[in-house]
Amino acid sequence: RSGEMAKSTQLIDNEVFRAYATYTAIVLLKMMLMSLVTAYFRITRKAFVNPEDVASFAKGESAKKFLRTDADVERVRRIHLNDLENIVPFVGIGLLYALSGPELSTALLHFRIFTGARILHTLAYLIPLPQPGRGLSWAVGYAVTASMAYKVLKTVFYP
Amino acid sequence: RSGEMAKSTQLIDNEVFRAYATYTAIVLLKMMLMSLVTAYFRITRKAFVNPEDVASFAKGESAKKFLRTDADVERVRRIHLNDLENIVPFVGIGLLYALSGPELSTALLHFRIFTGARILHTLAYLIPLPQPGRGLSWAVGYAVTASMAYKVLKTVFYP
Amino acid sequence: RSGEMAKSTQLIDNEVFRAYATYTAIVLLKMMLMSLVTAYFRITRKAFVNPEDVASFAKGESAKKFLRTDADVERVRRIHLNDLENIVPFVGIGLLYALSGPELSTALLHFRIFTGARILHTLAYLIPLPQPGRGLSWAVGYAVTASMAYKVLKTVFYP
Repeated sequence: RSGEMAKSTQLIDNEVFRAYATYTAIVLLKMMLMSLVTAYFRITRKAFVNPEDVASFAKGESAKKFLRTDADVERVRRIHLNDLENIVPFVGIGLLYALSGPELSTALLHFRIFTGARILHTLAYLIPLPQPGRGLSWAVGYAVTASMAYKVLKTVFYP
Repeated sequence: RSGEMAKSTQLIDNEVFRAYATYTAIVLLKMMLMSLVTAYFRITRKAFVNPEDVASFAKGESAKKFLRTDADVERVRRIHLNDLENIVPFVGIGLLYALSGPELSTALLHFRIFTGARILHTLAYLIPLPQPGRGLSWAVGYAVTASMAYKVLKTVFYP
Repeated sequence: RSGEMAKSTQLIDNEVFRAYATYTAIVLLKMMLMSLVTAYFRITRKAFVNPEDVASFAKGESAKKFLRTDADVERVRRIHLNDLENIVPFVGIGLLYALSGPELSTALLHFRIFTGARILHTLAYLIPLPQPGRGLSWAVGYAVTASMAYKVLKTVFYP
């Protein structure tokens, strides 16, 4: 029986880990959504980067006018890159944090604030809202990840 | 003995987790390969971005002609960024999925299709193949990750 | 009692995993630091990309002169992207490696060399040092991750 209890699925029975899994799946899906938004803007703004992407509807000189940058497309690409820069640390440090034995309520607070802040960041960037809307939402997510990293290093430090 | 079975190496005895580890290592190595392909194109096309990178073989005005963008280099860099955008969610969501207790055969199907789709995507982007070759291979990898995220959220949802 | 030992916190009692957690938190914090360095250079060089970022201190034509690229800002952004390209594989493959039962001393050697190499890479890129300083520090980190991937695939291969 001890073998059975030691199966890998045990992690998924831990409430903190389930909360981590839930919010990690949500923020990664939010990040993935940026690919679809980029595609939407590329198609509606007719702004592509690869010659093979315009070959089906334009040839020669007329193709070239669709190979261009567009302000809205570039904005969405910046959101996507900013997500990578911020969600990757959350996913990595958050996993270690979830395994470091935090209080469930504290962990939920971290995960919920981060997720809310990143959704606000995307909206503030996309609309766009006047600053410091985007800056603050970015800083809140950053501070949450730094707080988790502090807890991880305090708990496990083994340099 | 129960303590021994509970060691962290147990995860690595779980078949689904071993499959996850295998395919994650493969797709991350594939992504890392793009760094070498970028370096190869930068050197063969003589297209660099940092002044210190050309200082050993060109000075002053002649150095400037090597500080330029090149269509092939930019193409490889787009593949690399697309890998980051798609392989990061696979690695994060795939870990949670592997821990959520899926059927081994279902998990293998997800991991194999994703890995095959990303290899096809790289080839379609690099050659390049006519569309929708690249678009379809991208969409298949995206759908696999979304399917794993759905299973994770259905299994662990703890918001 | 076996149930207690099987709790998820067990991973965090494993010395190799604690070492992994320590160095992963450090390199992810180092990567996050690049966001602050980018912000610092954007503000001191007055080089922004979003119109809403300059709206508080410049209007109309005078705003346009702050919407520009700056060599130092672009350099920091390249460091940040290079971190993503290299630290993401380290975090993913390193986790699998830590779970694959390596010797503690071997694991520490991998984690310490990678972390040192990435810190050197950032310094070499930022100062910048003459090549091959940056190239070598990049290659060392790359080789460490490849070595861990080899160990993972040798241990768990389940294709």
